Amino acid sequence: MTDVAIIGAGQIRYGMFPERTLKDMFHEAAREALADIDKGLDPKDVDEAFIGSLSTGGAQLGNLAPLMLEAAGMIGASARHVENACASSSYALRDAVATGRARIAMAGGIEKMSDLPRERNRLWLGISGDVEWERLAGTNFAGIYAMMARRYTHDYGTTKEQITSVAVKNRNNAVANPKAQFRTPMELDYALKAPNLASPLSFADACGLTDGASMAIVCAADIARDFTDQPVLVAGSGAASDFVAVHDRPSMTMLKAVSEAANEAYDMAGIGPDDIDFAEVHDCFAIAELLSYEDLGFCERGGAGKLVADGVTARDGKRPVNGSGGLIGKGHPIGATGIGQVCEVVAQLRGRAMDAERQLKSPCYGLTHNVGGSGGAVAVHVFKAME
Amino acid sequence: MTDVAIIGAGQIRYGMFPERTLKDMFHEAAREALADIDKGLDPKDVDEAFIGSLSTGGAQLGNLAPLMLEAAGMIGASARHVENACASSSYALRDAVATGRARIAMAGGIEKMSDLPRERNRLWLGISGDVEWERLAGTNFAGIYAMMARRYTHDYGTTKEQITSVAVKNRNNAVANPKAQFRTPMELDYALKAPNLASPLSFADACGLTDGASMAIVCAADIARDFTDQPVLVAGSGAASDFVAVHDRPSMTMLKAVSEAANEAYDMAGIGPDDIDFAEVHDCFAIAELLSYEDLGFCERGGAGKLVADGVTARDGKRPVNGSGGLIGKGHPIGATGIGQVCEVVAQLRGRAMDAERQLKSPCYGLTHNVGGSGGAVAVHVFKAME
Repeated sequence: MTDVAIIGAGQIRYGMFPERTLKDMFHEAAREALADIDKGLDPKDVDEAFIGSLSTGGAQLGNLAPLMLEAAGMIGASARHVENACASSSYALRDAVATGRARIAMAGGIEKMSDLPRERNRLWLGISGDVEWERLAGTNFAGIYAMMARRYTHDYGTTKEQITSVAVKNRNNAVANPKAQFRTPMELDYALKAPNLASPLSFADACGLTDGASMAIVCAADIARDFTDQPVLVAGSGAASDFVAVHDRPSMTMLKAVSEAANEAYDMAGIGPDDIDFAEVHDCFAIAELLSYEDLGFCERGGAGKLVADGVTARDGKRPVNGSGGLIGKGHPIGATGIGQVCEVVAQLRGRAMDAERQLKSPCYGLTHNVGGSGGAVAVHVFKAME
Repeated sequence: MTDVAIIGAGQIRYGMFPERTLKDMFHEAAREALADIDKGLDPKDVDEAFIGSLSTGGAQLGNLAPLMLEAAGMIGASARHVENACASSSYALRDAVATGRARIAMAGGIEKMSDLPRERNRLWLGISGDVEWERLAGTNFAGIYAMMARRYTHDYGTTKEQITSVAVKNRNNAVANPKAQFRTPMELDYALKAPNLASPLSFADACGLTDGASMAIVCAADIARDFTDQPVLVAGSGAASDFVAVHDRPSMTMLKAVSEAANEAYDMAGIGPDDIDFAEVHDCFAIAELLSYEDLGFCERGGAGKLVADGVTARDGKRPVNGSGGLIGKGHPIGATGIGQVCEVVAQLRGRAMDAERQLKSPCYGLTHNVGGSGGAVAVHVFKAME
């Protein structure tokens, strides 16, 4: 099977931009991605495009993909909008990789959460649960992850301090990321006093609302050097689905789709979890990052709290996780998040992370982990700089 | 490049079913598609799934794909929702074909238009234009296609009778299709007296509102006979995008994306338009079918009116078009339409069209033509029974 490589990736700074349009944001992401291709690429040479987005917030009701292609200067290419809740653009990447073996393919992501009036913002919290069984029963995303957290602490004795340490780590990592939404440092003592959201999770343990856009461009690895001296191999791609409602799954403290997606990605890359040097994972709530450590095979069941407490996943630890700031610090513009993670991993593998403090020392394998809903759809990708 | 074949395809009867759920409708489509695979397929063996839908009408806000997989008994597979306005599920097929070379892939389509209250039904008419330039300026789909029709009749002298003849042909074809929504015959005299919609188009020239679900399952052609004695080759797949707003295009009487998609599909199949024996085309309005004849290369520019007047595209003509009834007669459940067209073409090529009157005599090549919006996204596929 032909290998596929990323030749360029770029994103806008995340934030809340009610004054910006979808077209304007996506245009900037395209400019960033194209500028990242050292030897240049005519946007008209893109053959196939996949645009990840959950909801366009009323700004465009359908035909999102060709509209975004206009903004990117790529009109004419075969293009579609890919939706998979918070994992939308990681699936866009997976599909770009499948077609990128024969063509130049683009995977993008876009979300404008500031389009909804403040009173309706809570809608975002329930938007991707099982509407029939979860949302109409009165729960929302915070509630679902709180249930997971409660069961997890009960089973393994993990403390609230350990959970919130994830959020504190990620918020502090974001300070060194010029693309991040939340760049003020946060101390654990302060975070532990944050108002309750859904016990045991507080507002400090949750991501916020974010506008964002991101893009990655891929092609067959054997022609990648025509476009850049630093192509990054998509060494592994894995994806799996699970029941959308948590009550339909056998366990509340593991996401089966993550293990399945990770195993597919590891197998394709010919490696195991121990080979991953750093990762960008889906910390929509702090508890979600802890669960990811276990589902990705970074530690044994129940061992995640200790991993973060020991600093293993700190930026200067043995295996940094969410060095970008993650969803909690960098921001979580739903449909743009997956490719935004890819932008960080690609920059790290090329030694191009903009802030010297943030740049890791010679990492080999980087991983992205992107979860749709509370685990209904998951995509995991493994990347490696091409030799 | 490995060939890909369809091993089974099925759909529900189209109609307005406010009492049915998305899960219920998709479950039935899955049952139909699986029953169509003579030698059987365990739904759990589907590796990759693409679910075409425009809007889920409030029934599920995100994570649509895994939810539909639950209904289909395919949970676990890598799955995503693909949106491209009215062409959503044809893109699902295109992407299933791309991954189907190595895996068993499913392309589905679903739409529930009856979910909106009657007062808001008009929303569907404007849902996929360019919101910024078309919808907010006060036009809608009927208005856009009426502009095309007006310019077309001005340029070529095509008559209102010729335009409406398309609708009459398709409504009468639908009578013999048990899966169709509108099965009452219609005479030209009656149709010409229908109330005005957007001049020169009347209500008789437009499709209605429809609920529907459809599914096709594909795999590599060289293993297709493990599942059925009558696999149908996806001989060609083409897709292209164009500016979403009509005013951004050089012509109002042709859809450039259709020509580009058709040429890609013909090239892949190694044939030309003259080789197509029958087609299912996107007649959201009667004028759209006339434009499709020219953009697909079935006749010269301005010749479409004569083609329908001469009966060339009638069910007993030289090249039947929309023998199923098309969008006007069979129905247009937006996200389900593309794969619904595929169901008809596959049945015809296998000699399985349920009504003897509808079954064509030994066709070789069948084509589907599916348009998103007013031409912003187009997919064309060419099919052939495997020898």
